[in-house]
Amino acid sequence: MNANEKFVAAEALVDSAAIAPLPNSRKIYVTGSRPDIRVPMREITQTGENNPPISVYDTSGAYTDPSVNIDIRRGLPALRADWIAERNDTVEQTDLSSDYGRQRLADAELAELRFDLVRRPRVARAGANVTQMHYARRGIITPEMEFIAIRENQRLEALTEDLRRQHPGHNFGAVSFVHAPKMITAEFVRDEVARGRAIIPNNINHPESEPMIIGRNFLVKINCNIGNSQLASTIQDEVDKMTWAIRWGGDTVMDLSTGKNIHETREWIVRNSPVPIGTVPIYQALEKVNGKAEDLTWEIFRDTLIEQAEQGVDYFTIHAGVRLAYIPMTAKRMTGIVSRGGSILAKWCLSHHKENFLYTHFEDICEIMKAYDVAFSLGDGLRPGSIYDANDEAQLSELATLGELTQVAWKHDVQVMIEGPGHVPMHMIKENMELQLKICHEAPFYTLGPLTTDIAPGYDHITSAIGAAMIGWYGTAMLCYVTPKEHLGLPDKNDVKDGIMAYKIAAHAADLAKGHPGAQVRDNALSKARFEFRWEDQFNLGLDPDKSREFHDETLPQDGAKTAHFCSMCGPHFCSMKITQDVRDYAAKLGVSEAEALQKGMEIKAVEFVKSGSELYKRAVS
Amino acid sequence: MNANEKFVAAEALVDSAAIAPLPNSRKIYVTGSRPDIRVPMREITQTGENNPPISVYDTSGAYTDPSVNIDIRRGLPALRADWIAERNDTVEQTDLSSDYGRQRLADAELAELRFDLVRRPRVARAGANVTQMHYARRGIITPEMEFIAIRENQRLEALTEDLRRQHPGHNFGAVSFVHAPKMITAEFVRDEVARGRAIIPNNINHPESEPMIIGRNFLVKINCNIGNSQLASTIQDEVDKMTWAIRWGGDTVMDLSTGKNIHETREWIVRNSPVPIGTVPIYQALEKVNGKAEDLTWEIFRDTLIEQAEQGVDYFTIHAGVRLAYIPMTAKRMTGIVSRGGSILAKWCLSHHKENFLYTHFEDICEIMKAYDVAFSLGDGLRPGSIYDANDEAQLSELATLGELTQVAWKHDVQVMIEGPGHVPMHMIKENMELQLKICHEAPFYTLGPLTTDIAPGYDHITSAIGAAMIGWYGTAMLCYVTPKEHLGLPDKNDVKDGIMAYKIAAHAADLAKGHPGAQVRDNALSKARFEFRWEDQFNLGLDPDKSREFHDETLPQDGAKTAHFCSMCGPHFCSMKITQDVRDYAAKLGVSEAEALQKGMEIKAVEFVKSGSELYKRAVS
Repeated sequence: MNANEKFVAAEALVDSAAIAPLPNSRKIYVTGSRPDIRVPMREITQTGENNPPISVYDTSGAYTDPSVNIDIRRGLPALRADWIAERNDTVEQTDLSSDYGRQRLADAELAELRFDLVRRPRVARAGANVTQMHYARRGIITPEMEFIAIRENQRLEALTEDLRRQHPGHNFGAVSFVHAPKMITAEFVRDEVARGRAIIPNNINHPESEPMIIGRNFLVKINCNIGNSQLASTIQDEVDKMTWAIRWGGDTVMDLSTGKNIHETREWIVRNSPVPIGTVPIYQALEKVNGKAEDLTWEIFRDTLIEQAEQGVDYFTIHAGVRLAYIPMTAKRMTGIVSRGGSILAKWCLSHHKENFLYTHFEDICEIMKAYDVAFSLGDGLRPGSIYDANDEAQLSELATLGELTQVAWKHDVQVMIEGPGHVPMHMIKENMELQLKICHEAPFYTLGPLTTDIAPGYDHITSAIGAAMIGWYGTAMLCYVTPKEHLGLPDKNDVKDGIMAYKIAAHAADLAKGHPGAQVRDNALSKARFEFRWEDQFNLGLDPDKSREFHDETLPQDGAKTAHFCSMCGPHFCSMKITQDVRDYAAKLGVSEAEALQKGMEIKAVEFVKSGSELYKRAVS
Repeated sequence: MNANEKFVAAEALVDSAAIAPLPNSRKIYVTGSRPDIRVPMREITQTGENNPPISVYDTSGAYTDPSVNIDIRRGLPALRADWIAERNDTVEQTDLSSDYGRQRLADAELAELRFDLVRRPRVARAGANVTQMHYARRGIITPEMEFIAIRENQRLEALTEDLRRQHPGHNFGAVSFVHAPKMITAEFVRDEVARGRAIIPNNINHPESEPMIIGRNFLVKINCNIGNSQLASTIQDEVDKMTWAIRWGGDTVMDLSTGKNIHETREWIVRNSPVPIGTVPIYQALEKVNGKAEDLTWEIFRDTLIEQAEQGVDYFTIHAGVRLAYIPMTAKRMTGIVSRGGSILAKWCLSHHKENFLYTHFEDICEIMKAYDVAFSLGDGLRPGSIYDANDEAQLSELATLGELTQVAWKHDVQVMIEGPGHVPMHMIKENMELQLKICHEAPFYTLGPLTTDIAPGYDHITSAIGAAMIGWYGTAMLCYVTPKEHLGLPDKNDVKDGIMAYKIAAHAADLAKGHPGAQVRDNALSKARFEFRWEDQFNLGLDPDKSREFHDETLPQDGAKTAHFCSMCGPHFCSMKITQDVRDYAAKLGVSEAEALQKGMEIKAVEFVKSGSELYKRAVS
């Protein structure tokens, strides 16, 4: 949709690309202890007899379930509604609690673009705390926790030992699954949440969301940023980016809109999102004061938090660590303050010469968070924006404050993760992780990259995937993607996909290096398919079947080439896998393994190999 | 050029994309101790008064020098010809020494595609050794070594302390430039070559090449593979890939052709290449026996080595470590033998049940290498082709043999580097480097990636850039690129560029992490430009000015946007750098730094800031 086209709610349609079937894949559901715990997975079928289907983690929600009729004007089914209601600790409200929310609802001019929400917002009963952390600490295993345990395991137990075989990994002191639980249990989920080592971002007003967990002892997750700016994009574009992002593996989506109709854009996104949605509320608050940071007030900000909490936002980035005293530390930097939220707060602090109001009102914020179960993503407003500024005093001072605030939030049983940098050369990445674990008491770390060099604008998905993979290995729980447009412009759908692919790679490389249970299954299956020239299986098991098929077909589009024992890279003569297979076939024909044949020193066999006509492949037509 | 089009030498033209000027850049030459040592660099001009031009390492040769008239039918000027002749240890031959070379030259049918070489091949005088290592060990500093010292320094001495400021790095015991020489000297180059810790791939029959060095204590280099296959590509395509590769930063190019007219294709590439050319001679030898590995003989292989050495190939991949006894170790692998050369040799060994003839004839090979100064790239024919197979017995057994062969080569003063994997999860990468350093006596390591996961066909430039950056940091001297087409097809020009970008990033990230002198200059300059909204400078200082400009202009194509203090990503309201700049401007206006202003607790100033009208930027037209 062109940015100048008008968005009309009644005509909104799901992006057809978001609901196209993925090749040789079907949506399956694993049922938990109660029939309404139905955990979605994507099952990829393989060809050949001894190649079982492979289940992979599936973030795409109902969009890839052909039995569900998708209408983005209606939103997704509220799968968690009963779980939330059953807990009997919330109340449905007759009206929105935020002034701004009511004002937007009353604005007749917005009618044609407004999402038609029929559900009433929920809030905790007076005095109640509805966070997953609160339940966890009281020993309660919620349906959400059970859902997550099943989801994280990906039916690993159904696979053969051979496919499950993997390197032990090196996990820098995280929970070792090699010795301890080899499978994730609901109790383990509960315990990790209770300790604050993992969070379940699940606002009670986002019942459409499929529970997921962010923590060092679980699969590494990725977040995708979307959102409009003053200069570009419509509501339809943003919904399309969200459905596109989850198709390719986005575990959470942040709506960073700073342009027109922020409130309505968010409503459309949340109602149609099966993954948790995060926001940076200060962006919208700034719009409410016409972009004048110095005019921000706690009251405006508070109303914004409530407005968004009642829409169902699952986590808020709160830049409460940008303290007045740290701002001068950025004066000698190469690139000052590069966090948008950080710079807004810095400007407010300087203008008033007062302490950051997010810091002074932090307990007030906690009261709101626990009434809806919104998780904190404590923002790193002073993160380094260049290699030069990495790990400097400003950054580390803010980190210390985030550690202090973590404990305040935990006092309220409010879930917390900590945002991290930024731009950091490789050798200084580990220090970030170690300090974060220590200072923030093992609260999950959520980092943007880090970018390992500044010199490649246009390729920052790669400069940062390097850092992301490493910090994921060291213990970061969620990686915030960077797209190729970083530093240059607003990402479009192509950029979103490129960013996701780079980050799925980084997250998975981290899971492998940590030795996470089952991490190597997909690698094993894909490599086996590759070795056996099952081209279709190789494509389908990969992160992007469309791209790999397209690349292969550029030179060999014929159907026959999908079973050929070579590709255009080397041609039939030079395919090492083909030659290896020839050697194995020869050994098998003789009824001995090649290893035995050799170890017994059977020169005779070698002679036979030659005699039996070792021209096993035909010469290519040249 | 379409693969079906016929290549005609007389009509060959340089690719216009290869000679287009790079924006705001000019070719400069730094002269050494003699006037014919002219070291090329690319100088990028910046805008504004206090922003000096930045010199960057330039692999693009005469193609980016507008004063040179490029005609690929004539080849490049032979800049090293005098240096080689002066040493008086070589003789010009009247005829080619290889049977096959003479045969191709006599073939009238090849006339129309043959490069018209007028130069006679050189060879060492009887009993002479013409390797750079031999000179180095006798204490001789060659012009090549001096050229390299100047080149590696990149005029660092001309820059201000501020631009040169960088993090100390962590280099795992390599030579520390922080304490020792802060600049590379010719004597240091000589010493590193003499010790075998670095190589200068500079065949005496490739006088067109601009000397460069591969070693742990120098800038990390990247290699780009090109070459046709039976199924695709022409001579013109391959020359175009080479000139395209060096434009974007390829430090060496390997011609891995396995298709038609391998001999002639190589001649065109070498004559037009300012960077060292590597090959895998066994590929061509196999073509000579019609693809039947078992028909390979030492005599055919020997003739191939001489044929290629007299064309000017600078390094040969020799899979001499694929010993008969190691082949059974690959039987239990997920993906067997994935090196083409390795599988060819394995097939030969099995067919004959004999030891690898490259191993048994290794000293004979050394004799050839030292007569032309061809460097060894000892091939890792048993590298792992999947995560499952990483660091296994077969791989490490071969490495031990490569260490043994390194010492044999050094006995002959023949230069050696060692090839490394492959597919390795992150946590097992360091072991590869440590073992290689120990077992191969610090000979330079040259690795393919490694790929850190198998699950992303179509994106293996990224899966492998992660591993490449890490192993580069740990001490690998040269990174062999992987393109997005890896495992799927023959790379085209776009793939070549994508692979190079990923690897320039990896190599540079490694230089930064090692704390290599001057490594951070370009990051500092680019980040400063970014912070100051010098968009053109940001584009031009980056690895790919074309791409970053294109991305920026997608949403803001107007010329005015190139000086705007925002981009489409956040719009004018939300630009953190803009806000930071506003704060600094305010402080400057008052004649105090913001740090002082704050540290003195000047509330008054804050009030003034507000009063003086802090609406410093205009609201965007919405």
